[in-house]
Amino acid sequence: MLAAARESFAARGFASTTIRAVAAAAGVDPALVHHYFGSKDDLFVAAIALPLDPRQLLAPVVAAGSDGAGERLVRAMLQAWDDPEMQPPLLALARSAMDVDGSRLMNEGFLPVVIGPVLHALVVDRPEVRIPLVTSQMVGLIVTRYLLTVQGLSDMAIEDVVARVGPVIQSYLTGEVGSGA
Amino acid sequence: MLAAARESFAARGFASTTIRAVAAAAGVDPALVHHYFGSKDDLFVAAIALPLDPRQLLAPVVAAGSDGAGERLVRAMLQAWDDPEMQPPLLALARSAMDVDGSRLMNEGFLPVVIGPVLHALVVDRPEVRIPLVTSQMVGLIVTRYLLTVQGLSDMAIEDVVARVGPVIQSYLTGEVGSGA
Repeated sequence: MLAAARESFAARGFASTTIRAVAAAAGVDPALVHHYFGSKDDLFVAAIALPLDPRQLLAPVVAAGSDGAGERLVRAMLQAWDDPEMQPPLLALARSAMDVDGSRLMNEGFLPVVIGPVLHALVVDRPEVRIPLVTSQMVGLIVTRYLLTVQGLSDMAIEDVVARVGPVIQSYLTGEVGSGA
Repeated sequence: MLAAARESFAARGFASTTIRAVAAAAGVDPALVHHYFGSKDDLFVAAIALPLDPRQLLAPVVAAGSDGAGERLVRAMLQAWDDPEMQPPLLALARSAMDVDGSRLMNEGFLPVVIGPVLHALVVDRPEVRIPLVTSQMVGLIVTRYLLTVQGLSDMAIEDVVARVGPVIQSYLTGEVGSGA
C-alpha cells in the first residue's frame, strides 16, 4: 500500500491521488487503507517515510501562539535536522525534492499538507504572501546548512541561528509585508 | 582547457586546482591558459559556464554602497534569474550544486570566489557571520522561486519580493546579528 501511495503521489501529485486509487493499485479494499493509515494526509506523511511526523514536531510551536513563533520554529527544525538519526532520511527527502518530480510533491503535498497548516495557524493575515516568505528562509537555511554545508552556517550553534534567523521568520509571520501588486 | 578546468574544480575543488595542473591535463602551456582566461578566478567563472559573469552583474550593487544594498541585491538577482535566456543555465548550475560534488564546488568555488567578494564589500563587520546568513536567504529565494516553484513566490512580482526580502538581506548585511557563542 505504501509503495502504491508513493508511486501515485510522485506521479500524479497529492491532489489527484485518491485513497480508492491507491487501494486499487495495491489490490486491497479502500477501507483497509483507511484502517492502517487514516486520512489521505496521514497516508502522505507515511508515504514520504519521514523518521518523524513533522506535524507532531511542530504542534508545540503552534500551541504556544504567534509570539516568539519564529524562534521556536527555527529551533524545532534545527533540532530535528541536527539529530544524527533523523538527518539521513531528511537529507534524502530534501535532495529528491530538488528533482522535477520532487518539486511537484513539495508543492502539492509536503508544503500544503504538512507545513501549510502549521504556518496557517501562526500568520496574522495574508497567508498567501507570508507562508511562501517563511518557506523561502526555512528552505534556504536547510539547503545552506545541510545540503551545501556552507561554512559559517553549518557550524553555527543552534541558539545563534535561532537568535539571528528567528526574528526574520517572525517578521514574515506577523510583521509588515506590504500590500503588494 | 575548459573541460580540464571543469573536471579539476569538480574533483579537487577550487583551492587544490592550479592553472599549471589544468594546463598539463589539457596538454598546453600554462601561459596559454593565462592568456585565454586570465586569473584562476576568471577560469573558474568560465568553467562553470554561466551566461553572465555574476561579478559584473553585481558590480553596480557594490558601487552604490551598503545603504539599500539588500534591495539592490535581490533585484539584480531576480532580474537575472527571470531572464528567459539566463534561467536554463542558472537552473542547471543550481541543480548540480545540490549534488555532493556540487556542494564542494559551491563551498570552495562559487561562494568564496564569485559571491564572497561582493558580500565582503557590503557587510559592515563580522563577514563570517553575515555572509552565510545572506547566503541562506538568497539561496532560499532561488530554490523556492525557481527550483521548487513554490506558489506565491514563483509568481510574486519582482518589486514585491524586493520590498519584502530586501530588508531582511539588509539586516543581515548591516543590522544587529548578536555576538554569538
